[in-house]
Amino acid sequence: MPANSTQLFPSFRAGANGVKPLERAILERRATPHFDGTPVPDEVIEAVLLAGAHAPSGYNFQPWRFLVLRAEDRRAALRRAAYDEAKITEAPVVIVGFAPSDGWKKTADEVFAECARRGAIPSQNLDQQKQQAVAFVETMSVTAWLNRHVMIAFTHMMLAAEVMGWDTAPMEGFKPAAVRSELALPYDVEVIALLAIGRAKGPDRAFPGRLPLKTIAFDNTVDRPWAVA
Amino acid sequence: MPANSTQLFPSFRAGANGVKPLERAILERRATPHFDGTPVPDEVIEAVLLAGAHAPSGYNFQPWRFLVLRAEDRRAALRRAAYDEAKITEAPVVIVGFAPSDGWKKTADEVFAECARRGAIPSQNLDQQKQQAVAFVETMSVTAWLNRHVMIAFTHMMLAAEVMGWDTAPMEGFKPAAVRSELALPYDVEVIALLAIGRAKGPDRAFPGRLPLKTIAFDNTVDRPWAVA
Repeated sequence: MPANSTQLFPSFRAGANGVKPLERAILERRATPHFDGTPVPDEVIEAVLLAGAHAPSGYNFQPWRFLVLRAEDRRAALRRAAYDEAKITEAPVVIVGFAPSDGWKKTADEVFAECARRGAIPSQNLDQQKQQAVAFVETMSVTAWLNRHVMIAFTHMMLAAEVMGWDTAPMEGFKPAAVRSELALPYDVEVIALLAIGRAKGPDRAFPGRLPLKTIAFDNTVDRPWAVA
Repeated sequence: MPANSTQLFPSFRAGANGVKPLERAILERRATPHFDGTPVPDEVIEAVLLAGAHAPSGYNFQPWRFLVLRAEDRRAALRRAAYDEAKITEAPVVIVGFAPSDGWKKTADEVFAECARRGAIPSQNLDQQKQQAVAFVETMSVTAWLNRHVMIAFTHMMLAAEVMGWDTAPMEGFKPAAVRSELALPYDVEVIALLAIGRAKGPDRAFPGRLPLKTIAFDNTVDRPWAVA
């Protein structure tokens, strides 16, 4: 299925209720504590990857990269770098979200040419447009920028898995240098997050609650907490 | 509507087609170049905030904070700190995603008490559990961690607006110190991203395309590009 397909999710429908609306996905998603051994079909993994690929990014640079670990020995290697977390070998699929520091620059010509071909940016002075965009990104902390972008894509992926009826566990407990070493990633790669996908073993965790909007949101000024209508 | 409501989105339905499935939201969302003046109803803003509030976070710390700018003079102030970007005053609502460096620690007792009350964590040794969680987060770059978390919530918000039929523009072009100064935010606040919400003026931008999965995804090892099934 090409990344510009008009259908992201497989016709295959996982749950008895079909694809969940976003509202239900947001309310029902839980970090999965344990996975059973149910395999995840290739078409589901691919739909999850396409949901990530279609995330928005600054100048459409798409700096995210995804290493899909399905082989047991590869997940065992990752587990060694991730505080021996059992979920990593229990889940049939773990996706490592990472970003090579310069990866987004290496694909920039391809990105800008495709943008111009589709009429999304002017086709004149492409190289100059690209250089200005690169220079702008470099006015920010590139590490923070890479972290932000990988998480936009990861959130798409987590929600896509949920609407298709699969369970996920996002993880941030790992030693980046050990992950690079265990998985033979280049030294200049930012390892950002892990996402296990499969079927939960046992019941979902209880919903832990959320801070009220009056604590986390503000109306025009930070002196005025958001008042629920 | 309380943050633990079982309904996030208003019964109010914006588009002729009702609420969009996630797949359509992912495929149809575009960064909006210009907004017309259509006001965004309060219940839509609140649904967007609740979608952000329900995002997942490490240990449920919820470090994100959202400043909702509706008043014209507040958006004009933000625009001065954001390269004079016209969208900021054109859109009726701009949400500033930020994170006070220590904000997540200040709400940690409340978060852990609520988690325990709901049975999501053991109710024994709450203070010790909290201290271990704080210590773990502090083994990472807290700046990167805050950036990641605000973007998870922002992605929920962007998709929630889209499924309700509203247009958005995420923005990263601003000077953080100037934003803090113009909006009277404390000095220790990380300003992470902006999200304008409203109705697009004129047609959507063309879809700029995406890199193919074989470029951004890998199968078990980074030496093996993902092969589309």
